[in-house]
Amino acid sequence: MGRNCNFEVPIAIKYKREKEISIMESIKKNNDEKTAAIFLAEGFETVEALAVVDLLRRAGINICMVSVTDDKNVTTSHGITVVADALLKDVDFDSLDMMILPGGMPGTLNLEKHAELMKRLDSFNEKGGMIAAICAAPSILAHRGILKGIHAGAYPGYEKDLEDGGAIVSMNSSTTDGRIITARGMGCAVDFGLDIIAMLKGQSESDRIRKAIVAC
Amino acid sequence: MGRNCNFEVPIAIKYKREKEISIMESIKKNNDEKTAAIFLAEGFETVEALAVVDLLRRAGINICMVSVTDDKNVTTSHGITVVADALLKDVDFDSLDMMILPGGMPGTLNLEKHAELMKRLDSFNEKGGMIAAICAAPSILAHRGILKGIHAGAYPGYEKDLEDGGAIVSMNSSTTDGRIITARGMGCAVDFGLDIIAMLKGQSESDRIRKAIVAC
Repeated sequence: MGRNCNFEVPIAIKYKREKEISIMESIKKNNDEKTAAIFLAEGFETVEALAVVDLLRRAGINICMVSVTDDKNVTTSHGITVVADALLKDVDFDSLDMMILPGGMPGTLNLEKHAELMKRLDSFNEKGGMIAAICAAPSILAHRGILKGIHAGAYPGYEKDLEDGGAIVSMNSSTTDGRIITARGMGCAVDFGLDIIAMLKGQSESDRIRKAIVAC
Repeated sequence: MGRNCNFEVPIAIKYKREKEISIMESIKKNNDEKTAAIFLAEGFETVEALAVVDLLRRAGINICMVSVTDDKNVTTSHGITVVADALLKDVDFDSLDMMILPGGMPGTLNLEKHAELMKRLDSFNEKGGMIAAICAAPSILAHRGILKGIHAGAYPGYEKDLEDGGAIVSMNSSTTDGRIITARGMGCAVDFGLDIIAMLKGQSESDRIRKAIVAC
């Protein structure tokens, strides 16, 4: 385990710092690596997004924080401004293995009313891409018919959205069904991130990270 | 519980947005509120710091993110740049109830080698202020004699630092002893934040937040 807190610098970040090229360009240069993008709107839930980024970077997964506004600076639902890696227009969706939607308010509503993002999400889903959403955000997947026949969870109060979308409601912290991962709230963010790692890099890597962060 | 993810805007942030006054000024205007500051150096651990900020703002605690560099933009150990609320020179330590140190590398080392911060920490401790640290950061408290006779935990590998500082080593996720809270790693950040809320606002408020975030 060693004395440090497991701070390997992810490949994409190394590239960015050393070569001044964009995260998305670096992703293309590492075709053997898994790649994911998490989409940040104003009012996204801090931990639901950043625990995922933190955990995936520990696992060496290329995870790009994409602002869906015109500004890389995006402010969370608890007043924390974070600098995203890229804007939506910079994303090469063909290079992505997974799209991730954090919850939070009004972040979730802002994601859902973003027509270009929703178009990309539908297309990504039709091509069989992996999709993950947490807290209020699984409701977006339900509204778009992505959860039909899928075991899925969401923040308490969103069960009807899931049912109306044909999902089988799960009360687990995080739920994996096929290529879809959903989770219930900020307190489930670490489980959600670890399940994403399990899907992208296997259960043993997820277990390694769980131990390294001293998770319950 | 309602349908939202518990996004009350904290008082300090409301003041900042509505009145364009600083967080630290707003803290002084709310003498009945509990106030805390979390200190961010380059390479701090993302979730260990921001889960605490997120949780404390849900509980209506004034929590100020303080950069210990000359720049409000601080980058975490996993390459995420966050905009702090204030610089160290802006902090009115007399108004603080608690000082909080996140872990991460090289963040923890950068905190410990910051002479002005260490001077402030020693002084705050001598006056009986509440102190919280997570992951590698409890080692800073141990090195400064703050943990003598105190039950405390830290990231695996730091047990000797704790023992050499006179602490009684705890293997709990988060440990409260008197006015000191310590926790073991990123996977313990939510428990750490909830214990801080319990100390500042009582166990029932901590329990309310634990339920609202659907924590394990």
